[in-house]
Amino acid sequence: MNRTDMQHTIVALVADKPGVLTRIASLFRRRGFNIASLAVGKSEQPGLSRMTFVVNGDEDSVNQMTKQLDKLIDVIKVSDISDEEIVARELALIKVQTSASTRGEIIQIVHLFRADIVDVGAQSMVIEITGEEDKINALHELLLPFGITEMLRTGLVAMVRGRSNGQVSDNVGVEIVSNGSHTPH
Amino acid sequence: MNRTDMQHTIVALVADKPGVLTRIASLFRRRGFNIASLAVGKSEQPGLSRMTFVVNGDEDSVNQMTKQLDKLIDVIKVSDISDEEIVARELALIKVQTSASTRGEIIQIVHLFRADIVDVGAQSMVIEITGEEDKINALHELLLPFGITEMLRTGLVAMVRGRSNGQVSDNVGVEIVSNGSHTPH
Repeated sequence: MNRTDMQHTIVALVADKPGVLTRIASLFRRRGFNIASLAVGKSEQPGLSRMTFVVNGDEDSVNQMTKQLDKLIDVIKVSDISDEEIVARELALIKVQTSASTRGEIIQIVHLFRADIVDVGAQSMVIEITGEEDKINALHELLLPFGITEMLRTGLVAMVRGRSNGQVSDNVGVEIVSNGSHTPH
Repeated sequence: MNRTDMQHTIVALVADKPGVLTRIASLFRRRGFNIASLAVGKSEQPGLSRMTFVVNGDEDSVNQMTKQLDKLIDVIKVSDISDEEIVARELALIKVQTSASTRGEIIQIVHLFRADIVDVGAQSMVIEITGEEDKINALHELLLPFGITEMLRTGLVAMVRGRSNGQVSDNVGVEIVSNGSHTPH
């Protein structure tokens, strides 16, 4: 990573059609970006999905890449929200080994993190946690000594705080929220 | 959808390298599968990611597709866990319009769903919810009349319940858990 490299969080609104993911993944590939995190799910509009990518790169390369992304068929809107005030969340399911002697300690850790136990087996437990990446990493670290047999993470989803129209890069012209949230324009 | 079509939940352990997503997305595309849901995140093993796909298709096509997936470079392991007892979870961030007169009612709904309010603006609120797909759909429906300006969903992550080794399709030979969890072999 050179000095200008930083982590970028990019949100794209795309048509929910076969082939869209292929085109987007190929674009990232051609430009040499490794996707650190990717989450794809339904948006508020029927037939449209919203993707959140986290990529590392310098400002210029990421700018060029988002512009190219924006030109792809079935990509409706792309926003680099890295410089915004955002809410970012990830969900993880962690299966940890348990025994009669470790179960109490694990439950205590789970409560400290305000996580949930969603399945209990004779020798394992499945823990559900949501939060920013660091919080999940911290829980993961603490559970490691007990033996983690499986972990699934969703990748980060992120949203700009406190403005009510969800527009990020359009020149909407009107500042809707007056409670200290900034607009990027 | 023909009579034999059903929803399949597929989990793949893959190398965290550029190009892996492109190859997987292309395979789905070539075989005509639309990915209903996709989540990609870190696994319990450094350098490996775990992906959860949800696809619709008949048993045979999905079987063939998972076999081909398993043959791809950098795909370490593929499991169709549709017939297993699974824990499945999705995370959503929903930005809903609020006013002095609707805020109370929205907060009440959020509490009923055991969801969280993670950001409050003058005219909007961001709600975080985790759960199975149906629960998130139900909250979405209830919030629709207030005006949803943005929704991001992570796609489903899913894990087999109550066995402590996370192996699904390997012939591990040993039944580790004896509390009624079934093994698929």
